[in-house]
Amino acid sequence: MSASDVVEEYIAQLSRWGRWGPDDELGAFNFTSAETVRAAVAEVRSGEVISLTLPYDQRGPQPGGFRSNPQLITTATGTDHVAGAQEQLPWGPAKGFGYADDVVVMPLQCGTQWDALSHIFHRGQMWNGYSAAEHSSAGAKRNGIERWCGRMVLRGVLLDIALLRGVAALEPGYAISVADLEAAVQAEGVDVRPGDALLVHTGHLEARRNRWGDYAGGPAPGLSLHTAPWLAEREIAAIATDTWGVEVRPNEVDRFQPLHTVALVHLGIAFGEMFDLSRLAAACRAEGRWSFLLVAEPLPITGAVGSPVAAIAVR
Amino acid sequence: MSASDVVEEYIAQLSRWGRWGPDDELGAFNFTSAETVRAAVAEVRSGEVISLTLPYDQRGPQPGGFRSNPQLITTATGTDHVAGAQEQLPWGPAKGFGYADDVVVMPLQCGTQWDALSHIFHRGQMWNGYSAAEHSSAGAKRNGIERWCGRMVLRGVLLDIALLRGVAALEPGYAISVADLEAAVQAEGVDVRPGDALLVHTGHLEARRNRWGDYAGGPAPGLSLHTAPWLAEREIAAIATDTWGVEVRPNEVDRFQPLHTVALVHLGIAFGEMFDLSRLAAACRAEGRWSFLLVAEPLPITGAVGSPVAAIAVR
Amino acid sequence: MSASDVVEEYIAQLSRWGRWGPDDELGAFNFTSAETVRAAVAEVRSGEVISLTLPYDQRGPQPGGFRSNPQLITTATGTDHVAGAQEQLPWGPAKGFGYADDVVVMPLQCGTQWDALSHIFHRGQMWNGYSAAEHSSAGAKRNGIERWCGRMVLRGVLLDIALLRGVAALEPGYAISVADLEAAVQAEGVDVRPGDALLVHTGHLEARRNRWGDYAGGPAPGLSLHTAPWLAEREIAAIATDTWGVEVRPNEVDRFQPLHTVALVHLGIAFGEMFDLSRLAAACRAEGRWSFLLVAEPLPITGAVGSPVAAIAVR
Amino acid sequence: MSASDVVEEYIAQLSRWGRWGPDDELGAFNFTSAETVRAAVAEVRSGEVISLTLPYDQRGPQPGGFRSNPQLITTATGTDHVAGAQEQLPWGPAKGFGYADDVVVMPLQCGTQWDALSHIFHRGQMWNGYSAAEHSSAGAKRNGIERWCGRMVLRGVLLDIALLRGVAALEPGYAISVADLEAAVQAEGVDVRPGDALLVHTGHLEARRNRWGDYAGGPAPGLSLHTAPWLAEREIAAIATDTWGVEVRPNEVDRFQPLHTVALVHLGIAFGEMFDLSRLAAACRAEGRWSFLLVAEPLPITGAVGSPVAAIAVR
Repeated sequence: MSASDVVEEYIAQLSRWGRWGPDDELGAFNFTSAETVRAAVAEVRSGEVISLTLPYDQRGPQPGGFRSNPQLITTATGTDHVAGAQEQLPWGPAKGFGYADDVVVMPLQCGTQWDALSHIFHRGQMWNGYSAAEHSSAGAKRNGIERWCGRMVLRGVLLDIALLRGVAALEPGYAISVADLEAAVQAEGVDVRPGDALLVHTGHLEARRNRWGDYAGGPAPGLSLHTAPWLAEREIAAIATDTWGVEVRPNEVDRFQPLHTVALVHLGIAFGEMFDLSRLAAACRAEGRWSFLLVAEPLPITGAVGSPVAAIAVR
Repeated sequence: MSASDVVEEYIAQLSRWGRWGPDDELGAFNFTSAETVRAAVAEVRSGEVISLTLPYDQRGPQPGGFRSNPQLITTATGTDHVAGAQEQLPWGPAKGFGYADDVVVMPLQCGTQWDALSHIFHRGQMWNGYSAAEHSSAGAKRNGIERWCGRMVLRGVLLDIALLRGVAALEPGYAISVADLEAAVQAEGVDVRPGDALLVHTGHLEARRNRWGDYAGGPAPGLSLHTAPWLAEREIAAIATDTWGVEVRPNEVDRFQPLHTVALVHLGIAFGEMFDLSRLAAACRAEGRWSFLLVAEPLPITGAVGSPVAAIAVR
Repeated sequence: MSASDVVEEYIAQLSRWGRWGPDDELGAFNFTSAETVRAAVAEVRSGEVISLTLPYDQRGPQPGGFRSNPQLITTATGTDHVAGAQEQLPWGPAKGFGYADDVVVMPLQCGTQWDALSHIFHRGQMWNGYSAAEHSSAGAKRNGIERWCGRMVLRGVLLDIALLRGVAALEPGYAISVADLEAAVQAEGVDVRPGDALLVHTGHLEARRNRWGDYAGGPAPGLSLHTAPWLAEREIAAIATDTWGVEVRPNEVDRFQPLHTVALVHLGIAFGEMFDLSRLAAACRAEGRWSFLLVAEPLPITGAVGSPVAAIAVR
Repeated sequence: MSASDVVEEYIAQLSRWGRWGPDDELGAFNFTSAETVRAAVAEVRSGEVISLTLPYDQRGPQPGGFRSNPQLITTATGTDHVAGAQEQLPWGPAKGFGYADDVVVMPLQCGTQWDALSHIFHRGQMWNGYSAAEHSSAGAKRNGIERWCGRMVLRGVLLDIALLRGVAALEPGYAISVADLEAAVQAEGVDVRPGDALLVHTGHLEARRNRWGDYAGGPAPGLSLHTAPWLAEREIAAIATDTWGVEVRPNEVDRFQPLHTVALVHLGIAFGEMFDLSRLAAACRAEGRWSFLLVAEPLPITGAVGSPVAAIAVR
């Protein structure tokens, strides 16, 4: 069977287009509910909060070009205040008052981030069959990241594949299989439930931290295309990894990012990328407990195809 | 007593500089702990999630100029894909694959946001006595917003002053007094605890929604300067309102934003601005319950003096 | 004859697509040559230099939104130097050395500017018949503004229609006719030659200066659609006005900017917009001489569909 | 004599602060006049126009970071038009009309550019003694680049030091001496006059073109600090080179960019950097004529400390 055939075959078997009606823009977040929120909150024991987000700054993983690292721009500074350039405030007497202000220029997928359902297309369509032309220079009229606001209070499960394989980090090109996922579930004694967020720890981010090289676009470990049926069956809402693109690179078949095509475009699953899972993995290993409350709301940037995210695990 | 004297007097009475050592950059978040996180989580009953964040887009409250509304920039579009301009991908064979990508240009205080402790200065200094020159064109070396990551899992209390005063919205210029705050606490039967986030509902955002006018910088209801001792005594970590600047405008004394000077610069309290509290207030009123889990992590933009925030209340 | 028919009729009569071969991206600049450059230079008498460019800043004509005014961003400031934040330079000992640096964020058509031949499309095509899909999120592969570099040393002719009509400024909606153009040529005693730049003074910019209102997109005086054959016959290289869009608004026929469709897309003429012609018109009137050297090079921003321009008339 | 002493000595000997009054912001452009414009224009013989500006795009010389290459952003595309996303125009019936629009984000000194007199400070002051605090986050109140509009119609003289030394390119670290400048003047038989722009060809840009490496900030040939008296005596208005910083790097004395301190801050001379002089040098060599009309107007970006420039030589 040719590469394209495999992808089309999975789509034919698994696609959820239309499952929640012709106007759906939530995708797999239809598996979440007030009940899953309560279950997520019930995972909190100690009150420890672990941030999963890389710093957004010029030392980030991007090499420049297509997606640069975020640029912080100052529009008023403490030095302005100290040097006397703020003595005449436009709004009232200063009398010692000073201020700083700033702007960020940020490619929305430059660091820790969610892909929206408008991020990827297949043969002219995005999630639920909307035309790709619903995304233009004006942004996304359908499936924008803002559709998910209020949905990112999730039960999180960490599957630690690096631990399973007995390595600090999986090698670039390592394709995480269904067998790996099942083995991790068994080893950890954790259950994966509908509406969960699955966090997959490869160790690749830690191996490259601050020596990024081609981290943000090069070869990487990641999920095999052939995990698509398993992901579908588990009815997870979201999957996130400590790599730039969730799925293994180079791709297993002769086309670009086939798992995005199946699992994001046709299953409606949120893809989280460049999540910093090192501290969380260490905490899970130390305690032998692999589930937690994950809060990871995207910014409601209207029509955006992704969003940076201040993701936290609460344990 | 002159205006300056009042402010200097409050500073003399209340300042917490040095309280948590000469290197502290957390400010009032020192009142939070794993214990306060557990107490915050314990507020969840139904699993309802309410977003408190305004959409980030060109229809936002900014009139242009100093702080513009966020601009979404597309760097790859669905229309590119549909029109055939993505047939040659740089990364591998497309075979039907298409993508969209984007960048945001966002003044960090243009919409729903937190002020960092590096946002405001008084007489050449910021929180804990650091020189204002620690904030330059390179950003904040001290008190950047990133210092608060992992700290914004808080017990939230809504004080509904509009309800208390029997109006849809307080008038611009209305100074919320200690008596108002105390009356709301009484009427709601809620307790305010160390490490809490206090959300103050004025109705002003709802009165101006989508007809913003001078909402983002003009006269507004807000906290009186003279609530500073009360805020200090309650040991709250954060305060947020549905107005652009937390405190009443025009200011009560002849200087710009005196409560920022006392409560942000000298008490180290996080100020949250333009929080959209309408749905939350309605839910609290309906249920007669005024406390909840607030998760409102800032983006860890290194050296930034504020951050947009995807804030949620979980009830 | 319907509106569409008129436009299609002019295209059928006048289109120059293919005239200079299938690979041409110069359009009407094919009428320029070293000879026209010498003739342009020969117009200089006194050595007076008159800038035709509006300041690029936040007080410019844009109301925000689609095209905002240019934003100057500072990345290093004199106040940083004064406040001591530049004492450690990354490049060598400061010993008193300080510097400022900055970035501009500028919609390329926000102020005085040229439209490139990739700016406007008609029925899926741009100048010379290239597909509009040659312009994507990656910019213009064909007809980018950079194609015109080195071509903007032109003989300029000012046609002062405000003077002709005896008004300070033509009214919005006033359609400048062939009769007007011919009368101005007669009254001024000037000749219009192949390769010239035609500058048309309406007075509209002066009438709105610093009280811009809807100047940058609203009703305006401008050229009638029916001047297209006259513009073609004169073989001018460029036309520029002191209005936002060269042609009259509201449009004379029931479609948007029909003269752009005929004269830019099919004749390959450069359109210059928001040229500040007041000082130049005054100088021409004072001297009774209406031709000059125009130097108005675009910035070679690769793939851009327009460019700000530091245009000057030298007399 | 110590390094600082040399610089301070030159300043003591040469400084022009106050020479043209306490309010001067033109600096050495005071040497220009209508007469120098006429003389510049009189240099035109053939009508050949040679662009001296590098393309502004992502393939430019910047390595990222402090000053990135310019970023072209599209806000409307030909692909939008082709894919049908422009069928509903906000301004009138499309009937086949389509458009593209774009924005540039450009560090003002990322490519071919002029330094303004507000770009460099010495001991808290800029040209003519203004406080460096006149440049804040709001830009330059004094000595902004816009002060020079209408002044950049100059007689240009190319001094070809690479030719003089018999090399394709001078080596990084080669300090061009007064003897070199004098020898080139002699060899070329050209005169340097008050108000001229001096263009110095090192060959360094050509040696690095499209293999930029550290071109935009690393070691480079350039003018010796000790040319300062010669530059002062010649009363030139501007100097430009095909290197990133005009003066030799590493610097000859133990401080950063001492010639900027003397010649820009104290003589008020415009510094032009990364001018692409290859074609011009070839034309001068071929013809044995080293003077020409230089038109190199900066964009009037209010308060900017530099500007990209579409510079041309007309011969």
